[in-house]
Amino acid sequence: MKKILLIIIFLFTSCLNNEKEKKDINFGIVIHGGAGTLLKENMSDEKEKQYLNALETAIKIGYNIIKDGGSSQLAVERTINFLENSPLFNAGKGAVLTSSGTVELDASFMDGKTLNAGAVAGVRTLKNPISAAIKVMENSPHVFLSGEGADQFGKEQGLDIVDQKYFLTKRRIKSLKNVKEKELNNDKISLINSKEYMNQKYGTVGCVVLDKNGNLASGTSTGGMTNKKWNRIGDVPVIGAGTYANNKTCAVSSTGWGEFFIRNVVAYDISALIEYKGLSLKEAARIVIHDKVAKLGGNGGVIAIDNKGNIAMEMNTPGMYRAHINSQGELTVKIFN
Amino acid sequence: MKKILLIIIFLFTSCLNNEKEKKDINFGIVIHGGAGTLLKENMSDEKEKQYLNALETAIKIGYNIIKDGGSSQLAVERTINFLENSPLFNAGKGAVLTSSGTVELDASFMDGKTLNAGAVAGVRTLKNPISAAIKVMENSPHVFLSGEGADQFGKEQGLDIVDQKYFLTKRRIKSLKNVKEKELNNDKISLINSKEYMNQKYGTVGCVVLDKNGNLASGTSTGGMTNKKWNRIGDVPVIGAGTYANNKTCAVSSTGWGEFFIRNVVAYDISALIEYKGLSLKEAARIVIHDKVAKLGGNGGVIAIDNKGNIAMEMNTPGMYRAHINSQGELTVKIFN
Repeated sequence: MKKILLIIIFLFTSCLNNEKEKKDINFGIVIHGGAGTLLKENMSDEKEKQYLNALETAIKIGYNIIKDGGSSQLAVERTINFLENSPLFNAGKGAVLTSSGTVELDASFMDGKTLNAGAVAGVRTLKNPISAAIKVMENSPHVFLSGEGADQFGKEQGLDIVDQKYFLTKRRIKSLKNVKEKELNNDKISLINSKEYMNQKYGTVGCVVLDKNGNLASGTSTGGMTNKKWNRIGDVPVIGAGTYANNKTCAVSSTGWGEFFIRNVVAYDISALIEYKGLSLKEAARIVIHDKVAKLGGNGGVIAIDNKGNIAMEMNTPGMYRAHINSQGELTVKIFN
Repeated sequence: MKKILLIIIFLFTSCLNNEKEKKDINFGIVIHGGAGTLLKENMSDEKEKQYLNALETAIKIGYNIIKDGGSSQLAVERTINFLENSPLFNAGKGAVLTSSGTVELDASFMDGKTLNAGAVAGVRTLKNPISAAIKVMENSPHVFLSGEGADQFGKEQGLDIVDQKYFLTKRRIKSLKNVKEKELNNDKISLINSKEYMNQKYGTVGCVVLDKNGNLASGTSTGGMTNKKWNRIGDVPVIGAGTYANNKTCAVSSTGWGEFFIRNVVAYDISALIEYKGLSLKEAARIVIHDKVAKLGGNGGVIAIDNKGNIAMEMNTPGMYRAHINSQGELTVKIFN
């Protein structure tokens, strides 16, 4: 009897310790809604409020999941689902249009515990591409699906299917028209360097999470660039460029001029600088965004969280829609640099 | 007059020094034709000879280009073109078939001097996907194109267009039939782990070069996996996974179970281990292939050359079709581990 009592006391104390340990983890969540030439003087107070509200609502979805002990994976998925469903961001509903006026969506997800990953590129009928990326990871032998095949897989998995019309917004139709007019009047180089064109590249959404079990996860979702042609794939569905997560180091989600993020293997490079050079997350993110991406002529930003809950929200653009909640529940929401 | 003479002598000596410097560079070229369960006992002497001959012919194309002072880019392109045109390898003609019996080709190229890169995924009509990847790099604002869009871009660039029939070989049609029969009789897991299926994944071709100007380049081209579905994209067109080149470190081309190479960001990881941890190329390649890829359950290999001409041909499979020529013109051709 005494023995049994001792065992019960032992189990109870272990359990308490375990709970304490879990509480000690600086869990947290960071999101972005794209980086770009966001200037205070170009944004009405009302517009600013809309974005701040959307970011706050989104991040609280994920925060509540991890606060209650839920997984980083679920927090990333649900948070990005909200951002995909909001017409404010360049992902899901409200995504930018391709050269032929259609919407082609890219997304990827990575699980820091198992290094499992999933990605889709160029999907046209799946309401929530981040959920498709997760299904690719969980229910296919592959990591990366594209085009009609990815749509077909998503349908087989029972994901929400929508008509292209669902994604279209007046704002993006107008943007495409503007860019096409510029294209007619300008040569390629001046178009690419024009401020208007630069702005069309951004608005990607992403989310990185450290949960109470110490598991990191990262997800990113986007419509890519306005007026994109030839089934262009950006950095977002490229594991290592747009998205990376590894419990040994950190979780990263990128946003910006995708071509430069692919060439710099941005998301994985931040992890490598931490693992191999012993840099802090902030230093690593700073070097990659300001030295490496900027040096090649690219711009954009990243959000990242490491396995101790330290975060980075680094950009070389005038602004990035972003928010953070730490384990104490403290919220930060920002737009400008 | 004396001054002019001095200047002429100075210019002449500089020129000689420059020539000497160029000659001192340990330029070199390494190629692979895929890694896999290649066993001596399963290969007839005739078949072995065919492969050895093809590898030798291919590598000499690239070697002659760099020996004569040509660029690493041209050497990579022309060498891979030969391998793509050979029905022996899983790239271009002779590529493996998708679940629907079609051919969908992936390729990528990276230039170590500029970190420029280009990639195509799922092309169906371009005879030489590596040339399409290079055109994407040179003549589009993008890095990564896919599907019909990539085919369209290649056509606009004046690349050779062929009918799907051109790519088909009896051997690959038979392989698809075998895998589909296995699929009918087995559950997914046992199929994926079956030896036959494992063998279907390999045969990718790749080439890494250091030229006399000290410029590194890497290219990779493949048909992917037999019976692939849903427009699956493997590691080959993913910059950082299948292909990476950086004059600061090395050039790498991967071959193997693509999903594991994406999750491990294999090609860039080798570069990062050299740059950030000071490892040798051989150590870096060994760690990534034997510790990282193998640890997750993946298999395959890489070829790599660093900016001093050191090479690595590392695999965790019983064989990898591979060849190397160094600056002294010494040729190595091997199949088995």
